[in-house]
Amino acid sequence: MKGFVFHGPGQASWEDVPDPGIKEPTDAIVRVGMVSICGTDLHILKGDVPEVPPGTVLGHEAVGEIVDVGSDVRTVRPGDRVLVSCITSCGRCRFCREGRYGQCLGGGGWILGHQVDGAQAEYVRVPFADLSVHPLPAAVPSEVAVLLADIFPTAYEVGVLNGQVRAGDTVVIVGAGPIGLAAVVAARLYAPERIIVVDLARARLQAARRLGADVVAFAGEDPRMLVDDLTGGLGADVAVEAVGVPESFELCTRVVRPCGHVANVGVHGSPAVLHLENLWIRDVTITTGLVDTYSTPTLLRMAAAGRLPTAELVTHTFPLNHMAEAYEVFAHAAETGALKVVLGADRHEVAIPMS
Amino acid sequence: MKGFVFHGPGQASWEDVPDPGIKEPTDAIVRVGMVSICGTDLHILKGDVPEVPPGTVLGHEAVGEIVDVGSDVRTVRPGDRVLVSCITSCGRCRFCREGRYGQCLGGGGWILGHQVDGAQAEYVRVPFADLSVHPLPAAVPSEVAVLLADIFPTAYEVGVLNGQVRAGDTVVIVGAGPIGLAAVVAARLYAPERIIVVDLARARLQAARRLGADVVAFAGEDPRMLVDDLTGGLGADVAVEAVGVPESFELCTRVVRPCGHVANVGVHGSPAVLHLENLWIRDVTITTGLVDTYSTPTLLRMAAAGRLPTAELVTHTFPLNHMAEAYEVFAHAAETGALKVVLGADRHEVAIPMS
Repeated sequence: MKGFVFHGPGQASWEDVPDPGIKEPTDAIVRVGMVSICGTDLHILKGDVPEVPPGTVLGHEAVGEIVDVGSDVRTVRPGDRVLVSCITSCGRCRFCREGRYGQCLGGGGWILGHQVDGAQAEYVRVPFADLSVHPLPAAVPSEVAVLLADIFPTAYEVGVLNGQVRAGDTVVIVGAGPIGLAAVVAARLYAPERIIVVDLARARLQAARRLGADVVAFAGEDPRMLVDDLTGGLGADVAVEAVGVPESFELCTRVVRPCGHVANVGVHGSPAVLHLENLWIRDVTITTGLVDTYSTPTLLRMAAAGRLPTAELVTHTFPLNHMAEAYEVFAHAAETGALKVVLGADRHEVAIPMS
Repeated sequence: MKGFVFHGPGQASWEDVPDPGIKEPTDAIVRVGMVSICGTDLHILKGDVPEVPPGTVLGHEAVGEIVDVGSDVRTVRPGDRVLVSCITSCGRCRFCREGRYGQCLGGGGWILGHQVDGAQAEYVRVPFADLSVHPLPAAVPSEVAVLLADIFPTAYEVGVLNGQVRAGDTVVIVGAGPIGLAAVVAARLYAPERIIVVDLARARLQAARRLGADVVAFAGEDPRMLVDDLTGGLGADVAVEAVGVPESFELCTRVVRPCGHVANVGVHGSPAVLHLENLWIRDVTITTGLVDTYSTPTLLRMAAAGRLPTAELVTHTFPLNHMAEAYEVFAHAAETGALKVVLGADRHEVAIPMS
């Protein structure tokens, strides 16, 4: 089959790789129908995630059809249409028993396209299939479901729930890429007083407005004064970091109010400066996190009920074998206007125009 | 009267200052019976808290007798024996209404010995007396009560409760000064599996053992391996920073397990490095905080019931006018073995021997 193989920082290609097969009785093989590219894949290519071995097929966000299952798999069978979640989980270790699947100690966690071959391929082997794929309701189209493999549960769990967004809050979201935009949608569920989105790309700020941001701020000017003006000098209740660079994290710690929360969602490749000389006295809570995907079933029910607005997020679709081109479009989002880029095996390239 | 006046970094003296009087109808004047020196006072003298104006009387931990009250004071009257808490609170602002008295926006918070004259003096004016002094049960001696002005509520609220210590946890406490030792006592209330205390001073590690630490570790050797050995490589559930230097904070972020908590208690004068390139994926929660003292009434009840072991903490007592000498003893704790240093107006210097 074909797959998109990482060969070290800056190097990857769509090439022949061996077909995956069942290795463990808990495995499933999924024929990939639709797969997307994650900002994390760009971080891997940039060298920010050095533990990814060269030779690994990338990708951890897919929808597809089960074609084979191991002898211990009970909840899915060949022919089932499933979501392949970014997180696989053994279900038996200490962390899985606490619902912290992202930290699975039993060989799961974020392993697809990270420690084992991923889903940017024609087929993917999914370990621990019973706990790691989600059967898809017919009411959820693949273009929506694929957004629930990673970005929506990540924005919801690591951004909104870790950040403890509550009714009446002022929420600052730094970064209006797919994760930041999903955080706008997820934060809206909690009736904040206002959502302020900060980014360097004006097209992304427009998308944030369409998805429900009340105020957008160009990151080139320090948004601290804007936040102070809107909050009577107090600062934001919650600041969500959705970029993954020190500057954006440090901005979050500057705009958050006393007793507020900074929820880091971004994938970081270098340290940040934590200004404890200011923060020690301010009762700030800072969280980091890899998604656990405990919310995926809930989000799928919401999507099936039409209560999760996702349509604005996918800007570009490609046939599966246009992977390299799709990466180019996604990596140069400032010029291409790309938000989420999706590859589906049986469709031609379509660029959805920005409204 | 006499008071201990800050004159800029490195400079302070016990000298004549004007007697305090009622300025606002919510004020009380307290004759100081016993007062202690806080690590924060040393941070002020070191220059870590630059907002303290020269000319300020230091001190925010005292026990004394009410000698005068303003016309709006309802809950105490002259003759009452009270605890002067490190936090005063207006009771009416947004943060006070949420029990976050440390962040009081109405002119309170940590102001004694910081923004207004403090309690290292013969008399102290306490603003918002109804909410800022605590009438003392007769069963609580002053030597115990003075520890509840700051170090016990701080260690309990900012260390143990913010850190979410739970039964069965491995708790690492970095720093075995008075706050770290109070954190040992407070953490024990939650039945942890083990408390590991890290410090550079072997005498303080001995005190930590006597107060309930299960394991002590000399900070000169990296305690990470010890923590890993004790926790099967996982790390500590909770790490409490009780020093106030970047190295001790960074140590806490290295020893904490995935999904664990780092509770910063220390007063910091410079930034720390936050290794987000490792932490982004580890689901770590970091909290900072100034004490709110919402727990002070509870701690007083526990002390009155004999359920708060505090006896080991006070190592040196002095007459009130030996303030400069007491600061010397406290600042050179490595040589003097000082833990908590207490000044009481009517007693001679007594050094309690270390057992």
